Order: sequence, then C-alpha cells, then structure tokens
Amino acid sequence: MSDLRIAALGVGMMGADHVARITSRISGARVAVINDYLPEKAAEVAASVPGSRVAADPFDAINADDVDAVLLATPGPTHEKQLLACLEQGKPVLCEKPLTTDSPSSLEVVRREAALGTPLIQVGFMRRFDPEYQQLKMLIDGGELGQPLVMHCVHRNPTVPPSFDSAMIVRDSLVHEVDVTRFLLGEEIASVQVIKPIPNRGAPRGLQDPQIAIFRTVSGRHVDVEVFVTTGVAYEVRTEVVGELGSASIGLDVGLVRKSAPGLWGGRITPGFRERFGTAYDIEIQRWVDAVRSGVNVDGPTAWDGYAAAAVCEAGVRSLETGEAVDVELAERMGA
Amino acid sequence: MSDLRIAALGVGMMGADHVARITSRISGARVAVINDYLPEKAAEVAASVPGSRVAADPFDAINADDVDAVLLATPGPTHEKQLLACLEQGKPVLCEKPLTTDSPSSLEVVRREAALGTPLIQVGFMRRFDPEYQQLKMLIDGGELGQPLVMHCVHRNPTVPPSFDSAMIVRDSLVHEVDVTRFLLGEEIASVQVIKPIPNRGAPRGLQDPQIAIFRTVSGRHVDVEVFVTTGVAYEVRTEVVGELGSASIGLDVGLVRKSAPGLWGGRITPGFRERFGTAYDIEIQRWVDAVRSGVNVDGPTAWDGYAAAAVCEAGVRSLETGEAVDVELAERMGA
Amino acid sequence: MSDLRIAALGVGMMGADHVARITSRISGARVAVINDYLPEKAAEVAASVPGSRVAADPFDAINADDVDAVLLATPGPTHEKQLLACLEQGKPVLCEKPLTTDSPSSLEVVRREAALGTPLIQVGFMRRFDPEYQQLKMLIDGGELGQPLVMHCVHRNPTVPPSFDSAMIVRDSLVHEVDVTRFLLGEEIASVQVIKPIPNRGAPRGLQDPQIAIFRTVSGRHVDVEVFVTTGVAYEVRTEVVGELGSASIGLDVGLVRKSAPGLWGGRITPGFRERFGTAYDIEIQRWVDAVRSGVNVDGPTAWDGYAAAAVCEAGVRSLETGEAVDVELAERMGA
Amino acid sequence: MSDLRIAALGVGMMGADHVARITSRISGARVAVINDYLPEKAAEVAASVPGSRVAADPFDAINADDVDAVLLATPGPTHEKQLLACLEQGKPVLCEKPLTTDSPSSLEVVRREAALGTPLIQVGFMRRFDPEYQQLKMLIDGGELGQPLVMHCVHRNPTVPPSFDSAMIVRDSLVHEVDVTRFLLGEEIASVQVIKPIPNRGAPRGLQDPQIAIFRTVSGRHVDVEVFVTTGVAYEVRTEVVGELGSASIGLDVGLVRKSAPGLWGGRITPGFRERFGTAYDIEIQRWVDAVRSGVNVDGPTAWDGYAAAAVCEAGVRSLETGEAVDVELAERMGA
Repeated sequence: MSDLRIAALGVGMMGADHVARITSRISGARVAVINDYLPEKAAEVAASVPGSRVAADPFDAINADDVDAVLLATPGPTHEKQLLACLEQGKPVLCEKPLTTDSPSSLEVVRREAALGTPLIQVGFMRRFDPEYQQLKMLIDGGELGQPLVMHCVHRNPTVPPSFDSAMIVRDSLVHEVDVTRFLLGEEIASVQVIKPIPNRGAPRGLQDPQIAIFRTVSGRHVDVEVFVTTGVAYEVRTEVVGELGSASIGLDVGLVRKSAPGLWGGRITPGFRERFGTAYDIEIQRWVDAVRSGVNVDGPTAWDGYAAAAVCEAGVRSLETGEAVDVELAERMGA
Repeated sequence: MSDLRIAALGVGMMGADHVARITSRISGARVAVINDYLPEKAAEVAASVPGSRVAADPFDAINADDVDAVLLATPGPTHEKQLLACLEQGKPVLCEKPLTTDSPSSLEVVRREAALGTPLIQVGFMRRFDPEYQQLKMLIDGGELGQPLVMHCVHRNPTVPPSFDSAMIVRDSLVHEVDVTRFLLGEEIASVQVIKPIPNRGAPRGLQDPQIAIFRTVSGRHVDVEVFVTTGVAYEVRTEVVGELGSASIGLDVGLVRKSAPGLWGGRITPGFRERFGTAYDIEIQRWVDAVRSGVNVDGPTAWDGYAAAAVCEAGVRSLETGEAVDVELAERMGA
Repeated sequence: MSDLRIAALGVGMMGADHVARITSRISGARVAVINDYLPEKAAEVAASVPGSRVAADPFDAINADDVDAVLLATPGPTHEKQLLACLEQGKPVLCEKPLTTDSPSSLEVVRREAALGTPLIQVGFMRRFDPEYQQLKMLIDGGELGQPLVMHCVHRNPTVPPSFDSAMIVRDSLVHEVDVTRFLLGEEIASVQVIKPIPNRGAPRGLQDPQIAIFRTVSGRHVDVEVFVTTGVAYEVRTEVVGELGSASIGLDVGLVRKSAPGLWGGRITPGFRERFGTAYDIEIQRWVDAVRSGVNVDGPTAWDGYAAAAVCEAGVRSLETGEAVDVELAERMGA
Repeated sequence: MSDLRIAALGVGMMGADHVARITSRISGARVAVINDYLPEKAAEVAASVPGSRVAADPFDAINADDVDAVLLATPGPTHEKQLLACLEQGKPVLCEKPLTTDSPSSLEVVRREAALGTPLIQVGFMRRFDPEYQQLKMLIDGGELGQPLVMHCVHRNPTVPPSFDSAMIVRDSLVHEVDVTRFLLGEEIASVQVIKPIPNRGAPRGLQDPQIAIFRTVSGRHVDVEVFVTTGVAYEVRTEVVGELGSASIGLDVGLVRKSAPGLWGGRITPGFRERFGTAYDIEIQRWVDAVRSGVNVDGPTAWDGYAAAAVCEAGVRSLETGEAVDVELAERMGA
C-alpha cells in the first residue's frame, strides 16, 4: 500500500512539530503539500521534507489531487471554512484544537459531517493517547475503581506569553481538562463554575491566575481543576479519580499510583521486557534505519561492544564454576 | 528517498516483533525479504507484511539485489557465518545479541569488519536507547554526579524456560549489565566474580539462581549485579550510579531519581508539553494515519467532542465573569 | 520537680489512649484521677494506672487538691460546664475537640478565659504537632513557597459508625481541615461552600458522602477539601499548598514532596543519624527502662550480639588488608 | 512504682543526647548520677538535670546506692572494666556500641554474664527499634517474602571527622549493617570480604572510601553493603531484602516499599488515625505537660482556635443544607 499523502496547513510551532513527526517517525505517511499564511515559513519547512511542495492557498492544498488527508494546525478562526472544505472534498482531516472558535459554528461543522454519513474529522485532544491516561481509562472502564464519584485535576504551566488573558486560560488550558473529564467519565459536563483565588503577583498584570474550575457532570459527579499557568516551575498535569472502590492518580512523576482496599498504595511493575524496553527497541530500529539510509550504517553498539561482552561473559562463566574472580582478557582495541 | 529494504533473518519471537515494528511504526524502511529455518514460520510472517517475499536460504536473502540491509535475529550459533556474509556483501546488519557465541569468533568478526575500513555491524543492546539509561548517561557525562565510583545493578525476571541453565544466566541476562556497565562508565571491565547465594527453591532443579556478579573496571570502579530470573514477581531492571557528587537511580518505577548535596532527593518535572505528551502525539498521528489508510478515517476525538468542549468553555468564560455556576447547553447528540 | 498530676475526664477510646500515653511514654506527668460517666469504665482504666484513683463526679475531679491539670475527653455537650469549672479553679485543661458544641458557647468560653488574663485552655487539634505538618508550616513561614494562593486537602476514612450523619462529616472530619487551613495559612476563613457529589452507594443510606468543601480565606485564598469517610481503603490525609514560588505536598506516603523551579520534584534526605534514628533511640531507651523496672533487664540486643558484631568486624578489618574473604570464628553460643 | 535512677557514664555527644532524652521524653526514669572523664562536662550536663549529681569516678557511680541502672556511653576502651563492674553489682546496663574493642574481651563479658544466670547487658544497636526495620523484620518473620536469599545495604554519611581511618569505617559504620544482617536474617555471618573501589578524591587522604563488604551467612545467604562515609550529600541508610516470594526495601525516603506477585510495587497506607497521628499525639501531650509544668499552660491551639473552628463548621453545615456559599461570622479576636 502506498504512503498516505498529507497536506499540512499551518506550520507554526505545533504544525511544524507534526510535519517533522510524520517525516521522521510515522510509518505509512508523508507530507506532500505545505501551506502557511507566511509563505517563507511554508518554504522553510518544505525544504526539510523530501518530495514535498508548497501550496500558496490552503483551499488549493485541500483540493489537490496529490493530497489524501489534511492536518489542520492553522489559527482557530480559519478552522470552520477549512473543515467545511475538507468535508466537501470528502477528505479526512486531523484538526488541532479548537474545532472552531465558538459552539454554534462547531455545531454546524458537526451537522455537516453528520449529513455526509461518514466520519471525516478528528480533533487533536492528544491526551487520550497518553499511556498514563490510557491506563487510567482502562482502570475505570474495567470497574477496578468502582463507580467514579470525584475527580481532581491540576494543570500547571511555568509561563505563558504576555498576550495570554483570563479567558484564554479557560479556552486554551482548561479545555484539555474538559476533554479529559468527558473521556474518562464518559458523560457530558452539566455545569461549570470558575473560582478566582487571590492572583499570583508574578503573573502578567490583570491575568486571573490561578483559576479553580468546578465541573458537575450530568450524573452528578464532581470535578475540580486547578489551572495555574505562571507557576515558574514546570509543566505539571495531574489527574486523580476517586471511585467507590479506591482511587488512582497519574501525573505525579511516578506513573499511575493506586490506592485500594485493604489499605495499599502502589503501582504495577512492567511485566516483561516488551513493556519495559518497547520504546527503546522502537528508537533503536528507527535510528539504525536512519543511519543506514544516510550511509553511516551504525548508530549504536558496535561489533567491538559485542566482542567485549562475549569476553566478559566467558570470564563470568568461569567464575561461576570456580567461585574466584577471573580476569577479562581483551585483544587490542580495533574498529569503530 | 526510497524506503530501506530489509531482509529479516530469523522471525521467532524477537525477529517477528522487529518485523511488526518496521512495518507499522518505523519511518523510511520496509521488510522486503523474510527467512527462517522453519519455512512455514517465514511464510506466516511474510503474509502479514505487504510487498514482502520469503527466501528459502539466509545467504540468498543477504545477497539479494532487493535487500539494502539485514536484521539478524537467528540463533546465536549461525551469527558468525551470516555476519561474515553481510561483510562480504558490504551490507549493514543489525545483529541481535550475542554477536557470536564465543570471544575468539567475535574477535574475528571485529577484525574482518575493521579490515573493510567501514562500520557495518550494529549489536542489539537496546538499553542504550532507553530514555532512562539515556538520562543517566547524560548525567554522568555531564559531570553532574562527579566521577562514578560504584554502581549497583539489579536484573530480575519473573520466570525463565525450563531449559535455562546457570551459564545462560550469565550469557543471556548478565550480558545486558555488561553492556550497561561499559556504556555508562565508558571503560572496559577488568575482572568478574560470580557469587552463588543459597538458591531459590522455586527455580528449576540445579539452576544457580540468584547470582551476584562483581565487576571491577580497568580504572578500579566497583559494579555489583544481582541477577535473579525466577522471582515470580515481574520484570525489574535497575541501575544506581554512585559518584563523588551524588547518586542517581533508574528503574525504580518512578523515573530517574537523584540524591545530591545538600541532602536532596528527587527528579525532574517535564519542562513542557513536548516532553510530557510527545509520545501521545506520536501515537495519535500514527493511529490517525492507520485509520485513514484503512478507510475508517477517525480513531480518536470526534467533531462532537470538539463541539462539546467549545460549549463547556463558553460556560466557563461566562462563569469567570459572573462567579456563578453556569449550566452547559448542548444540542442533541449527533454524528460519531 | 515533681510530676504533673492529671485528672482524666472521659476514658472512652480517645481518653483511654491518652491515659496510656501519659502513663507509659510521657515524661514528667502521671494520671492521678480518673472519671467517666460509666463508673466501671473508670475503674477498669484506673486499675491499669499505678497510683491513680477514681472520682465519681467530674467536678470533684477538677476541684481535687491532688489534681494540677485536666485532660478533657468527655462527650462534646459536657465540655462547656467542665471548661468553665477548670477556669474557675485556675487549672490548665487540654480539651479534645470540639471546644463546645456551638460557636456562641465557644465564644463565651473564650470570653471567660480572656477575662482571667491568663491562658488555661488548649484544644486537641493534634495535626499541628505532626512532623509533616510542622515541616509544611516551616516551609510556608520561611517563604520558600512564596505567598500561598491555593490549598488542596483530602481527608478519607475507610469507614464510619452507622450513626454518622452528613452534618457530622462537617463537624467531626472537616473540622480538622478547618484548623489545618487556619494553622498553615495563618488567617481566618471568610466563607464556606459544601458541594454534594453523587454519593457513594457503599455509604449508609442517606449519608452525603463524599462532600467537597470550598473555603475562601479573608485575604482571598482558595482551599478545597474532599472529605470521603466510607472509602473502604484506609486513612488518607493529604495537604498540598500551592504558592507563588512552588508547591509542597504531605500525606502522599512519601514524606513532604516539593515542586520548585527550575522544574524539580523531590524531598529532603535526613541530614544525620539524629533525624533518621531519633525515634528509634526514644523507643530503645523507653523499652529498656520498662524492662529494667519490670525486672527483665534486657529488651533488645544482648551481650552476645555485641560479641558477634566484634568478631565480624575483626574479620572485615583483616579482609580490608588482604582483599580476600575472611571466615568469622565464633565461640559456642551462650547467654541470652 | 518509683522512677528508675540511672547513672550516665560518658556525656559526650551521644551520652548527653541520652541524658536529655531520659529527662524530657522518657516515662519512669531519671538521670541520678553523671560521670565523665572531663569533670566540667559532667558538671555542665548535671546542671541541666534537676535532682542529679556528679560522680568523680565511674566505678563509684556504678556502685552507688542511689543508682538502679547504668547507661554506658564512655569511649570503647573503658567498656570492658565498666561492664564487669556492673555485672559484679548486678546492675542492668545499656552499653553503646561497641561492647568492647575486640572479640576476646567481648566473649569474656558474655561468659561472665552467662555465669550470673541473669541477663544484665543490652547493647545500643538502635536500628532494631526503628519503625521501618521493625516492619521489615515482621514481613520476613511472617513469611511474606518467603525465604530471604539476598540482601543489599547502603550506608552513606555526608562526612566524617578527619581522624576517621579505613578500619573505623568497618568498626563504626559497617558494624551497624553487621547487626542489621544478624537481626533481620536471624543467623550468624560466616565470612566477610571487603572490596576497595577507586576511592573518593573528596575523602581525607589515605581513607579507603567507599568500601564494599560482602557477607555470607551460615546458611549461604548473600549480603552486600556499600559503606560510603564522605558522600557530601546526607545520611542515607537503606536495606533491601530479596526473598523467594518478593522483595522489600526501606530507607528510600518513601517508607517500606514491597514488590510482590503479580507484578505489584507499593506500600501500605496507615489504616487509621492512631497509626497516622500517634506521634503527633505523643508530641502534643508531652509539650502540653511541659508547658503546664513551666507555668505557660498552653503550647498549641487555643480556645479561640476552638471557637473559630466551631463557627466555620456551622457555616459548613448551613451550606450543606442550602448548597450556597455561606459567610463565616466571627467575633472580634480576643484571648491568646
């Protein structure tokens, strides 16, 4: 099967990240067309992607014959029209949040897609793919926590751009917790209250930061969220679900931690090497492929490393027999 | 640039894993030729890889014109001849450990590669690519621990096959710690001592398990390793480096943990969303690409999820203004 | 100086615990008089305390010449009169929470004590003496977290008696977080809101559990508290303070954990043996004193243990010189 | 029963600590007689202990009629004679390590005590009383780890006095791990090997630091110990026991952590308030007793704190009924 040809619309920080990702780490796809409202930015990114071309107009990119699917990372206000163009062309689109800038226009997009009878739009709430959120979701859906009753979320950024205002904390930061709530609890949010604590004097003047949001879900569950975007510390995203049979937390820098009857806290050890070193294998193979394609051939342990390991293990086996310390005899170093 | 065409020799558990990895997650490569000493195994794996073919003879596979590089996951005793064939053909090869089954033959392979003047062989010590080992290596090389003096390693498996014998614990398990020691400390191991504690009664009869290995490096550093392959618990791999300025541990299920002056323990919080959610983004995009290629188009949050988030955020912004709880008004559910 | 003679009023679970504590672990005090509204309970406890006597009437106990101070662990409704009697007698009193059962009567007690011009009443909010709360208080007062902005508390019990009602969750459980808030933040609470999530089906019928309390302090700080008294798990009490320069948590089963710039998480290692083993020394000496007083003389390592340690260390010193393993020669076992 | 009258011999750092402990925190004992080879030191410490007197000669102190028991914290070389004097007098003695300075004299002390037929000597290996070691011992003895096979110990000091030499690392530091091994595993050590890694350049010239000790027990268990006394970091004492059914660690700054089938790691949450706040109660009561005895009367939450808590809880109960935020009305501050 041939590779999926993607048009990348908007190659600012987020879009350029995705282009690099598709080019260097994703199997079965390539970026074919690049568009940005800054033409020189589009040209710069395209130069780093073999076989890609620049499109001056985003709608031309969406309509192009050599484009199978669209990655939308343009500013929010342009999303509605671009999404509708994708729907008209019947082309799948991955749209970075927000879907659109208000709920009536979002609803209109939903309606138009529903009228087509086939799903084409995916929204970029990436946390649903994070291994820790996945584990937490499985725990909840598997009934291991019992019915969830309460959820506590923390969302902290070290800093934000000076242009950030109080409503953007809701729309750009809190929005992730909105999706996390809907994803983990599997139901809609019925009401929202935002509490304004004494603000951080280190925040830009006029910014209400931190904010505390209280969600009540349709079935009556309580969710509280601390959003604090000028902590000066680091990026901390944390979720704790409290259910009728115990609680579980993620984002504490220590993996998923459960509390369960009769009074135990802890997590799960990786059961085998696949779980422990699966990512290492992926990186190893990708880097080797990249090294061979670039003519370097080796980007990791060399034949000498293999030889030295063999020599040490032979000494080890002899010591296993004799109980004595055994010297390792190595030839003179050669090769890489 | 066209994809790298790989011959996979040996598609048992490890080799088949690598074939699936290259086919579904690695960018810029595909498995072109598959060989196994069990022809039906080779055929079965090839059936799952579009565009691949079976080679009845491993040397035919190595020599084939449509093969750019070789992935060697055959049993150890066949490695030497197959590696030499790769060297003769000038083809890069990624060889699963061991390089060969003894140090003289390993040294011969090193010599032959050195004679070529160009590196072609990489050995599959995958831990060097594990993010935690990478962090630990950076910490050491950056001088943050001062000169390393002592290293403690633990390598525990829940269980091993009945055929596992005491020497295999050295050659197949301890060998990873041999490479970790050489990688992290950047020098050769000068002597090895294996201590035999009272054996686990739950281990197969006659198996010396656990074993304690003591390495002394050329410069006089001390490394001790507990290898215990029948713990019945899980897969635990742990390394602590103790230096003149502090110590650091990985594999404690809590990320890298440091101890440093003046009396602090702890780790590093992810500085930003790229570090925290980079893997989530990779998974999101790969799954979306796979979904589009298979005609499903969406494998994640839908347009409805985007709409619902917009509606909740609008209620949040109103509450930010009024301080009151605000109800969320949603249209009737439609779409996916 | 002679020992403080204490009258213990109320020797139910809490009072009896305190009597045992004073008798066996507290220096400089003894329980002289015991009173309970169940005379047989008072007699039973008195029988376990050498030199104590039972008083039939609590006011007789307060007034007694051989009583220097009062420990009040009677039911709340009796507190007011008993506290006023202590004030009249000018006798110091440690009063288990609540001070009295409502705020007007509590205020009256405060007024009467203030009129005396000398403090006599201490209230039993014991968390202020917990080493973790003490550390957190020092961190805040030392300015290490900057100005506190937000505080998150969790208070979970595995189970409560069937008689527990929703208001008791406020008065008996939440009350501790009220004091913690006032203690840590050093200011009064200006308003309280209690949110009622979907209740735990495992709780007694009609009990609103969990409850979420929102405190706003006089200066505008935000505190949220989850109180959940039927978790079925264990006793979990947790506090996180989020300030302008970082955050700190206690009660996570891992000591106090801080997050601070530039992106670090962690805690403090005990600086020396006094901090690490201070409690061990206290227990060692108390148990030895008890053993000698009871005629057993030894309750810990024996002379043989001292001898064996000396023999092993001598072998160690020889090995330090020779580098070889040295056998330990022990005489035949004798003594305790 | 009257208080135990103790003679404290040697009031350097360790002895003075014990005198303060007995005077201020231990129930049922007091220091009656104080001796030190520096008379002014003895006088200084005695001045801080009501009712104590100085003895010019240690043997006079041991023999004195007003001494029931002896606390020996003199330098090691004087122990033998002083212990024998205690045995002659039939007086119980708590002897700080070492018992004596070599194993023959230690054995002689054991013999003389055994001849008396009654135990009188306890040795100050205080780790046996540490709550974490106690938990670990209970876990082992309860069979929860299965038969122990291997133990790993770490003993790190930030710094040592300049006079510390390599043999003192064995005799003064490693000796604790000797006792821990004997205590936890319940058997004697059969052989010792000390390994000398490349030494820390930050250690005093000539000091072999770190040292690695390898113990083999009589039944064949393996124990390794890292002793590193010039880390510059803090005081770290750590023990991991690896058994046939799992492993457990203490001293990781996170309480006792277990690894057990099927692949779980974690610890135990405090089951109730006694376990969580028992130490807080002890401190609360001791500080209150001290405050009353000194005439201060209150050293903790005041009546005002009790009143304020009542007022907040009343607002909470109203909010529980109405669901609204309720303001807290407080009278004007008065009292302490």
